[in-house]
Parts: sequence; C-alpha cells; structure tokens
Amino acid sequence: MKDIPRATAKRLPIYHRYLRYLHNAGKTRISSTELSEAVKVDSATIRRDFSYFGALGKRGYGYDVEYLLQFFGKTLNQDRLTTTALIGVGSLGNALLNYNFRKSNNVRIGAGFDVNKDLVGTVHSGIPIYSIEELEEQLEIQAIDVAILTVPQEFAEEIVDRLVAAGIKGILNFTPLRFEVPSHVRIQNVDLTNELQTLIYFINQDEANLSME
Amino acid sequence: MKDIPRATAKRLPIYHRYLRYLHNAGKTRISSTELSEAVKVDSATIRRDFSYFGALGKRGYGYDVEYLLQFFGKTLNQDRLTTTALIGVGSLGNALLNYNFRKSNNVRIGAGFDVNKDLVGTVHSGIPIYSIEELEEQLEIQAIDVAILTVPQEFAEEIVDRLVAAGIKGILNFTPLRFEVPSHVRIQNVDLTNELQTLIYFINQDEANLSME
Repeated sequence: MKDIPRATAKRLPIYHRYLRYLHNAGKTRISSTELSEAVKVDSATIRRDFSYFGALGKRGYGYDVEYLLQFFGKTLNQDRLTTTALIGVGSLGNALLNYNFRKSNNVRIGAGFDVNKDLVGTVHSGIPIYSIEELEEQLEIQAIDVAILTVPQEFAEEIVDRLVAAGIKGILNFTPLRFEVPSHVRIQNVDLTNELQTLIYFINQDEANLSME
Repeated sequence: MKDIPRATAKRLPIYHRYLRYLHNAGKTRISSTELSEAVKVDSATIRRDFSYFGALGKRGYGYDVEYLLQFFGKTLNQDRLTTTALIGVGSLGNALLNYNFRKSNNVRIGAGFDVNKDLVGTVHSGIPIYSIEELEEQLEIQAIDVAILTVPQEFAEEIVDRLVAAGIKGILNFTPLRFEVPSHVRIQNVDLTNELQTLIYFINQDEANLSME
C-alpha cells in the first residue's frame, strides 16, 4: 500500500473509533451521510479518503459497519499493541501518563524516563519511571521503538540524538523544536501553542471578513 | 485578506517564532534555503505559503528579517494579547495551566473553571479557578471569547452548548468528541491519541514498504 496523505491518515482513527461505537451499539450498516454527520467530515472527503483503500461502500446501501471496522482496524494495526516510552515526566508528561491514551486499545505508555531522582524508581498512573541514564537499556529490554518527547526544550536535541542512535522509529514531539533526523525515523510534532494561535488567527480572519461585509 | 489554507496558517507561528529568534540574535536577512533548513519546511512550501501574502522576498537577497517579523506579527495579531479560559482543571488542564503557552507572548490562560469544590477559589500557576457555575458571568466580565476544553467527555457537549450560548468565538477542543456549532464559532480539535496513532500508522507503512523492497 502506498503512503496515503497525512490528512487522510489523521482521519482514520476517527472513522475507526466511530465504527467501533456503532458496532457496539449493534448497528450493521451506515450511510455515507450519517457517517459524515457523525464524524463531522464532509462526505466528499470521506469518499476520497476511502478511495485510497479501494471502493468500500455500495450505492444505495451505504457501508457495512463490521467490514469497515475490520478493514480500518487492520490498516491501523489495532490488533497490535504498541508500547511507547514517555521522556520527561514534568507536568505535561504527568498528564499524558494519567491520560495514557485510554480511549484507544492499541497504544499505551509502558515506561517513563526522567532526570529527577525523586521520581526515578516510582510508579505513576501504573507506569514505572526510570532514570534517563537507563534510556537505551530499557528501550531495548522492553522492545520500545516509539517515544513521546515532553522534556524541556534545552534537553530535547540531546535526547533526540540518543533516541535515533538507539534505533527509535518514531517520536511524538511536544517541544516547539523541529529536529533533523534520518529518513527512517518519523516525527509527529504536536505544538499546542501553535494550535491555539491557529485558532485565534482564524477567529481574527472571521472578524476581519465580517467587518468588510 | 482571504482565508488561507489551514496548513499554511499552522506554519505561520513557526515562521514567526524563528524570525523573532533571528531578530533577537541580530540577524537582518535570511535566505529561503536557511529559513527552510531552520524550520524544517521545504522551500517550495515556504514560497507557496508566503505567496498568499504577496511577494515578500527579493531574488538573490533573501528575506528581510525585520520586515518579515513585523509582517507576520501583524498577521498573527502578535501585538494583541488574547486571554483564554480553560474549562476542566484535571490533569491535562493542570498541565496546560502550568505550561500557559509561555513560548508565545500573545496568548495566555486568564481563568480556569472546574466543578471540583476543592479547586474553586484557589489559584493554580497564577491562574484563578472559578466554579463552572460562574462560567457565563466570568467570560463576560473578563471579555474572554476563546475557550480551551479539557473536561471529561461526558460533560463536553453541555459545556460547548453553554459556551456557544455565551457568545464564544473559538474553542480549542482536547476531548475526542466532534461538535456541531454555528458557523461563526471556530473549533480547533487536538486529539492526542489520534496524533500518536497517526505516527504509528506511518511507522507501520514504512516497515511494510521496506519489507516489499
């Protein structure tokens, strides 16, 4: 299967989550209009997204919930649990440990790492916290190849270098920095300030447009 | 100015942040190649992004740092401070209060809201926490029109209805739900599980592609 657009990939978990909900509720099929209203994605986009995976619906019938669910589950590797390491148990790291992606059943944080000696050796929200010195060793022992980066910005570059050297495959980056990594390492940047600024930018645009009308 | 693509809008704060850094470091101009390397956005994308705002660079000279900085600052409304309300002071809410978008100088959280009687009336990371019953009143008194939603999923729908009725203009939504709101209300969804699943999806795709080579 070829790489699909990032925007499509980001919508797959949303489709999958809603289909699981429908399936649990005993629903066997759904029209594209219903699906569109439920997930707040317009139906043209849904059809285009689905087209990357071949034609999945039937005209006049809609989509078969169980078939779609299995299909997206397989695509998203829902059967396989991915364990991740959280690096940096500060306030955001702590919130992520507590949250631990509970809404999903295929990803979880399995280990935390920090420099704080008061934290090392403790268990937070059921997750053991290791010293950052044990990073490479624990990643190997626990066969972890995805890391969540919540360290202060000034330590981020060094940690990313160590992660790459240790053979990490993916990093969910919560720092505002952008990293140069080999092409076999995937980085997904989550920039909360940026999300808020983007929202405000669009609000301001709406107001500017209104005042011109 | 017309609406620019969402992807471009999301990159504006990144450009702006780096330009501020350059300006503070005393740099007066930057080539598109340097800018591209620094912000990890390919130069074709940068040129396309900049084209929405008219031609900003000069061939053979690059970009004038101060001019660009002022230009993006104005576009992003960096001169105007936007105060937001945080609704739901749980573990993620607390992390956001502590974080409080410090890297930016134009957005901050000014008030927190929760149902927990132990929290109401206290100050967390310098931010006063109000009872959710005071929501409408405080939004009006403090002239807040942007909210950050970090409540448990089961209360989200009701809070969004109240925010919309109170005249909110934008919501940064951290719940996994998608809301139906009037067109004058902007919602920016931040779905952390989705971000992690997208990352893992791409890692799996990389591996599938490798094993086919």
